[in-house]
Amino acid sequence: MADPTPNRFERDTAVEALGTGRYRGTVDPGWAVIEGAAPNGGYVLALAARAMRDALPHPDPVTVTAHFLAPPEPGPVDIEVELVRSGRRHSTVAAKLWQGGRERTRLLGTFADLGAADGPTRLDRPGLDLPPLDDCVDATSRSVERAKDGAYPAPPILMRFDHRMPAEMMGWAEGRPLGRGEMGGYLRWADGAPMDTLGLLVVADCYPPPVFNMGDSRLGWVPTIELTVQIRKRPADGYLATRFTTEAITNGYLEEDGEAWDADGDLVVLSRQLALVAR
Amino acid sequence: MADPTPNRFERDTAVEALGTGRYRGTVDPGWAVIEGAAPNGGYVLALAARAMRDALPHPDPVTVTAHFLAPPEPGPVDIEVELVRSGRRHSTVAAKLWQGGRERTRLLGTFADLGAADGPTRLDRPGLDLPPLDDCVDATSRSVERAKDGAYPAPPILMRFDHRMPAEMMGWAEGRPLGRGEMGGYLRWADGAPMDTLGLLVVADCYPPPVFNMGDSRLGWVPTIELTVQIRKRPADGYLATRFTTEAITNGYLEEDGEAWDADGDLVVLSRQLALVAR
Repeated sequence: MADPTPNRFERDTAVEALGTGRYRGTVDPGWAVIEGAAPNGGYVLALAARAMRDALPHPDPVTVTAHFLAPPEPGPVDIEVELVRSGRRHSTVAAKLWQGGRERTRLLGTFADLGAADGPTRLDRPGLDLPPLDDCVDATSRSVERAKDGAYPAPPILMRFDHRMPAEMMGWAEGRPLGRGEMGGYLRWADGAPMDTLGLLVVADCYPPPVFNMGDSRLGWVPTIELTVQIRKRPADGYLATRFTTEAITNGYLEEDGEAWDADGDLVVLSRQLALVAR
Repeated sequence: MADPTPNRFERDTAVEALGTGRYRGTVDPGWAVIEGAAPNGGYVLALAARAMRDALPHPDPVTVTAHFLAPPEPGPVDIEVELVRSGRRHSTVAAKLWQGGRERTRLLGTFADLGAADGPTRLDRPGLDLPPLDDCVDATSRSVERAKDGAYPAPPILMRFDHRMPAEMMGWAEGRPLGRGEMGGYLRWADGAPMDTLGLLVVADCYPPPVFNMGDSRLGWVPTIELTVQIRKRPADGYLATRFTTEAITNGYLEEDGEAWDADGDLVVLSRQLALVAR
């Protein structure tokens, strides 16, 4: 029998259907990047996507795009869902996330039942070149220890995951950046809950920006303009292996490309965001 | 003085404002992939984007996403534009493209004035490894010659561009595929018109699918579910260098990643589409 108790992710992205495509959710403060500040964009995307798929026979977002208009604050949000087209294999849905009379996020996504996908498979893309899991640092515990030692507080969203990162990926926080725009490692939910395709929407945006590893003093915070996540497969149990890169910054605009692979060695996510170097 | 005569691309994507966010355009048959068939998705995207930006102070799509619901046919289309948010640096706009009482494409985009973008620039991404332009084949002329010789007709959209392609990229049409999912080369408009940021939306979808170069008999036509194009810069005069790749096919779902660089060596486009192997 499935565990009837919702896990932390399910609880914090729960939505209540109010009828005629209207939903109510609550932005939980536990998904902020900085204590008390705006929630992570991937979390907002997942919260909205749970409403978007509520009335569909298709539970998996195969491609969903969010344009971030203004960050919501912790507390209630309203989500307005419009079914654009519903077919046998796919449903396309648009959504608006509102708070305090102001639209915060606009979304557009296509959903499918990935459990029923049955076309050809071929993987020419090389997998990730990460060290073995046991050679990685427990980045979640490390961050908590550093916070106790008086460093900056551990980001709330970090605590939602069990992060295992190659040591070289973490040097940026101690003044030893990689010198290239890369971030990543292994992760799973901190509470051991299974990862589903809505959770992958958070995974696609849960790391510090790869630009932090560039060692370029011009680059600080990089607010997301748009995030698109493509999901291929429901992940197998176990840690996901992830990689996020930024390779081109053009007059302040940059991409953040992400990929995640499951414990079966299958590609489960391709993501890309457009972000802008904050002035 | 600027040439007041619209070029072919401008003419075929012209829209008439009918008021209150409503526009009328015409799908021209000259942008089909197969004579008499549905228009190219990038062309439909550009047509809609011209309406989307009509009322904005921001002429350049920095990121625009289209979900393709059903292909339109040549002839009149209606475009309904909703201004989601207008700020100093960016405007976000949603749009619906209708024909015959049926929605064909849903879009969401953010626009900027790329001429005024002034943040940092840093390019770590390697450029394309194409042979020099003069060593490439005039793929447009070659296709027309082949059509005269009784091969399949030249695709109308091919004639809109002056395509110069590495010889190895063209073998797939004669039974000698590359063996990997790649397509690309140099291109400019066939009529010599300058390439603008709306034209780049067509460039992002104008090649045969990279899967044609895989040499995998399971892979035929791959209809696009969603296409997102990120634009960084107004291109310099001259040929664009392009590369499109497909590296992972998962139960029929695949990505098509594109990039285009201008004659100044700057990255101008990053694109990604989600497509599905046709049954």
